[in-house]
Amino acid sequence: MVPPVEGVAGGGTAYGWDDVSLQNQSSLRGSIDPCRVPSSELVHVWCMPSTANVGPQETPRPLEHVSLLAARNERESMQIAIRPKVSWSGSRSAGIVQIQCTDLCSISGDRLVIGQSVTLRHVVPILGVPDALVPIDMPVAQINLLPGETTSIWVSIDVPSTQPPGQYDGEFIVTATKTDAECATQFLGKSEKYQVYRELRNCYDAIEHIDGKPVEEVVERVKSAATTLRRVLLSPSFSDFYSENGPPDMMDEDANLSIRLKLSLTVWNYVLPTTPSLPAVIGISDTVIEDRFGVEHGSAEWYNALELHFKWLLQYKISPYFCKWGNSMRVLTYTSPWPAEHPKSDEFLSDSRLAAYAVPYSPVVPSGDLAKDYLQKEVEILRSKSHWKKAYFYLWDEPLNVQQYDSIRHQASEIHTYAPDARVLTTYYSGPSDAPLAPNNFEAFLKVPGFLRPHTQIYCTSEWVIGNREDLVKDIIAEIQTEKNEEWWTYVCMGPSDPHPNWHLGMRGTQHRAVMWRVWKEGGTGFLYWGANCYEKATVASAEIKFRRGLPPGDGVLFYPGEVFSSSHEPVASLRLERLLSGLQDIEYLKLYSSRYGRNEGLAILEKTGMYLGPERYTVDHNPIDMMRGEIFRTCRS
Amino acid sequence: MVPPVEGVAGGGTAYGWDDVSLQNQSSLRGSIDPCRVPSSELVHVWCMPSTANVGPQETPRPLEHVSLLAARNERESMQIAIRPKVSWSGSRSAGIVQIQCTDLCSISGDRLVIGQSVTLRHVVPILGVPDALVPIDMPVAQINLLPGETTSIWVSIDVPSTQPPGQYDGEFIVTATKTDAECATQFLGKSEKYQVYRELRNCYDAIEHIDGKPVEEVVERVKSAATTLRRVLLSPSFSDFYSENGPPDMMDEDANLSIRLKLSLTVWNYVLPTTPSLPAVIGISDTVIEDRFGVEHGSAEWYNALELHFKWLLQYKISPYFCKWGNSMRVLTYTSPWPAEHPKSDEFLSDSRLAAYAVPYSPVVPSGDLAKDYLQKEVEILRSKSHWKKAYFYLWDEPLNVQQYDSIRHQASEIHTYAPDARVLTTYYSGPSDAPLAPNNFEAFLKVPGFLRPHTQIYCTSEWVIGNREDLVKDIIAEIQTEKNEEWWTYVCMGPSDPHPNWHLGMRGTQHRAVMWRVWKEGGTGFLYWGANCYEKATVASAEIKFRRGLPPGDGVLFYPGEVFSSSHEPVASLRLERLLSGLQDIEYLKLYSSRYGRNEGLAILEKTGMYLGPERYTVDHNPIDMMRGEIFRTCRS
Repeated sequence: MVPPVEGVAGGGTAYGWDDVSLQNQSSLRGSIDPCRVPSSELVHVWCMPSTANVGPQETPRPLEHVSLLAARNERESMQIAIRPKVSWSGSRSAGIVQIQCTDLCSISGDRLVIGQSVTLRHVVPILGVPDALVPIDMPVAQINLLPGETTSIWVSIDVPSTQPPGQYDGEFIVTATKTDAECATQFLGKSEKYQVYRELRNCYDAIEHIDGKPVEEVVERVKSAATTLRRVLLSPSFSDFYSENGPPDMMDEDANLSIRLKLSLTVWNYVLPTTPSLPAVIGISDTVIEDRFGVEHGSAEWYNALELHFKWLLQYKISPYFCKWGNSMRVLTYTSPWPAEHPKSDEFLSDSRLAAYAVPYSPVVPSGDLAKDYLQKEVEILRSKSHWKKAYFYLWDEPLNVQQYDSIRHQASEIHTYAPDARVLTTYYSGPSDAPLAPNNFEAFLKVPGFLRPHTQIYCTSEWVIGNREDLVKDIIAEIQTEKNEEWWTYVCMGPSDPHPNWHLGMRGTQHRAVMWRVWKEGGTGFLYWGANCYEKATVASAEIKFRRGLPPGDGVLFYPGEVFSSSHEPVASLRLERLLSGLQDIEYLKLYSSRYGRNEGLAILEKTGMYLGPERYTVDHNPIDMMRGEIFRTCRS
Repeated sequence: MVPPVEGVAGGGTAYGWDDVSLQNQSSLRGSIDPCRVPSSELVHVWCMPSTANVGPQETPRPLEHVSLLAARNERESMQIAIRPKVSWSGSRSAGIVQIQCTDLCSISGDRLVIGQSVTLRHVVPILGVPDALVPIDMPVAQINLLPGETTSIWVSIDVPSTQPPGQYDGEFIVTATKTDAECATQFLGKSEKYQVYRELRNCYDAIEHIDGKPVEEVVERVKSAATTLRRVLLSPSFSDFYSENGPPDMMDEDANLSIRLKLSLTVWNYVLPTTPSLPAVIGISDTVIEDRFGVEHGSAEWYNALELHFKWLLQYKISPYFCKWGNSMRVLTYTSPWPAEHPKSDEFLSDSRLAAYAVPYSPVVPSGDLAKDYLQKEVEILRSKSHWKKAYFYLWDEPLNVQQYDSIRHQASEIHTYAPDARVLTTYYSGPSDAPLAPNNFEAFLKVPGFLRPHTQIYCTSEWVIGNREDLVKDIIAEIQTEKNEEWWTYVCMGPSDPHPNWHLGMRGTQHRAVMWRVWKEGGTGFLYWGANCYEKATVASAEIKFRRGLPPGDGVLFYPGEVFSSSHEPVASLRLERLLSGLQDIEYLKLYSSRYGRNEGLAILEKTGMYLGPERYTVDHNPIDMMRGEIFRTCRS
């Protein structure tokens, strides 16, 4: 076929081509009643994987039924994309669709219940990029579609640890429906309602006090009242009830017109470990919480706000730490805002979903009796607990000169005086700039462990340093004395930038998820991210979210305040936070496989599927992810 | 100031900066009631010129009052941008604002009436680019704001020819308000209404037939009915009326909290000519109308649809022609769908707003008695009319080979047999490819008039041929024998492309408006555009608008079917159509100025203000446009 466009400067005078056959639409004429037309004539519905960034310009694909695989204690997600073919609403939107979802049921009668294990969220663009996942009502959600725009619904299935393995089937039912404005004819408007009220009031006045009235007058009054009542009852206000059968149930009719999307989920017997194998510690700025939610540091509301954030984040298999930045990147980090002896601290720190926790070097909420011997007392209490093995001290973010390195040494010495087995974590991407450890930057960077030892146990380095030189990893690891319980962790923040894996807004979905693939392939045993709520300053919970100047969009932000999108106080996850979770789950799959077949086979599966070969060589497509997971399911299920 | 971001790979741990002072927001806490908070704490409101493309990411600017200048019979436009500072709705939107607009009044009591002379439209993105202008209800409009997104309202003022000159002042009042969902508490929901209905029904049944009943029973029944009625009246359904004063009027309260934007319009004594000085003939595909609106060629509905389009487009000071493409770019073009002798043809063709009209070479709606001697008869009738001077024949779009050139010659000969003074228009960008008129393309292109003469009077060339070589214009003009009533017109379509002026989606506002500046500067006496409604094929009026494949987005589309955006059948203009109109109005200003001070001074004003110096050198900013118009107002008003 030759394009129907003639001449370089000529107009395309003929129709072009269309992805979608037009035959189906031929029955539509004039104003469209969605209750009488198959929804498939009104909307496109199709599925997209969780690694797709589905924006308003996403073009429709054929509707195919979905098969997913999930272990127990795993969350698996997918997206349902919807785009109007026509407008049927008569108002500014193209129309409204209703999305229903059934429970997912197995043949043996086990269930994954909608609203509990199955949740739907609306994918909302941030700076024009699909990112925020705003919860929508279940089991029936109404979505407003705009002309010429694709809307995406994020579907997550959380498989409980105790869920019996097997195949679970369910269905999404998408039905084009009338808009609120049109439905409003079913409601009484205010002036109409006032009219009804006045009539009833007159009626009531007539018959209120009849005791002792002459019979004739009573009869007269009652007849008048009956006439009024009859008029009200037969008025258009109540016309939908004349049949006296109550509101007609249209669900059955609707159902025949709906688009049905079958979902089949295979739950396998593997249970992801409750405590994630790889600690991913993620900073939550307490300053941002204090400013935005107007809670005073140390107040009851402040503890509540921190607890809400802590518990909400645990579902993402990450280990939150709260932090406050001081001068020169000195940081106060703490996973529990309470002192060690407080029962709440035990509750927080012993939570089995927490893989690591930060111990504050100085009191989080200063008070007279706390300050004295604070550190020694805290450490003594914590060392007596079984969760002490999860503890670490994070004292300084990216020391850059000798003075800053000395501060770390000084603080670490004190900590190790009280607890020789304490783990001090230091993030860095270079040696001190004012006393170079080596003639070139990378050599100097490599010498930091020797320079800091024994004042740091967790050497946490920027992935940015490695660039695309994966071979440098062995040089870094060579400096870490794992036999002395030293660990190598990594982090990402402003860098590395595209095309390397990171969590910036606008990167591909697999690029977000690959952050964790990279960690696993490089062999780090932990991961740090500096901030999940580091918006620009605001003093109102629902204030517009602004990213901080000078940072790539999305850097330091993995979730949003719920108040921006609805009246809910629950934080709103980003797509990127979901992909962080998916990446951590991928690590559990790879660990399981490696525990059976060896790490080399684990690395081979990354290569064989084409999922991840290096920081510039990983899949942009979702398929290799499903291949990796499917292969591990097949080889490890028995 | 040094950015608060440390280290190349470091995180931006401190707050950045903010354009907007935060002090104003300090009073907001917890859930926000827009009826108690100044709207300026909830939304940014600011003005933008009509040449700005205000998308969702547009950042706020200070609110400044607006002064506009307009001649009589001119439309002048501006935009009001609104962006939520916080969310206050509790639903998926950030909140709703109400926009009211007063009439614009002069001291002497003359008015420009809102809804008639002053209209508001919602700027709706197409493919993510602000383009469609969807009418909104006046005098009070409600706009739904999304978190983190700027919404723009397009304000147009049409000054009638008879409007007394002077200064007209008015005000836009923007008020944050509650959402429909919140207002819905004022309404009776369906199940609640059913409850009321059942109670009243029981009540009525009790007192309906009391004739002949014993008094005791009547009293009993009436008391029961009164109790029921009392319960209904005191139920929450009617709680807002307990005071019996009816719905409280909150308008006064609201007004104090509103944001007020003053608009001052200077209307000057110049009256733009009713018939535009420069004929801009614009193609309307009848095929698209037939397919999309399901009207059969030649049916009564078809004539209605064409008439609706014709009349709606006249407000844009353009001269529509309908067209149907045949093979090899043969076109059937016609401004009136009726035969010449039909009274409707006279109505269409003598409309003083029409600057030029296309006469069909063959019958538009074939019928037995029409076909014979059709052309001769039509021409005889039209030649007898005073509007004949506006007539032209457009027979072929961009002939490319000798056979196509010969077809034009053949048809033109026949036309000139019947009407030696008929104008035949031919669009072209090259000579015949199979018989080169010269060794190089541009030379061959220049020789087309010599090759076609006397079979074409309007030589209509693509601006694409000129590129940025404005100096080539004199070579083109040198070939045109204006003394023999030959004319040089131009056109744009796929080309020229960015950075040259054209009407593609995604180009700058001044780039759209500059299409007409270019025409005026180059000295063409007319302009052609191939299509204003050339969407991809659809058979439903409200079907999604798709641009044709192979064309730059927006090419061939200057307006949209209203049905896509609302229940209205009125077409929806694009920003680009408004800028075409503005450009045509600019030409009237420049012509007025040149008529007083000479064309060289007219060209000098373009240069002096920096508005337009050439196809790659024109303003991206709006100011030079206001300077040009202001200068012409000052020098020509007396």
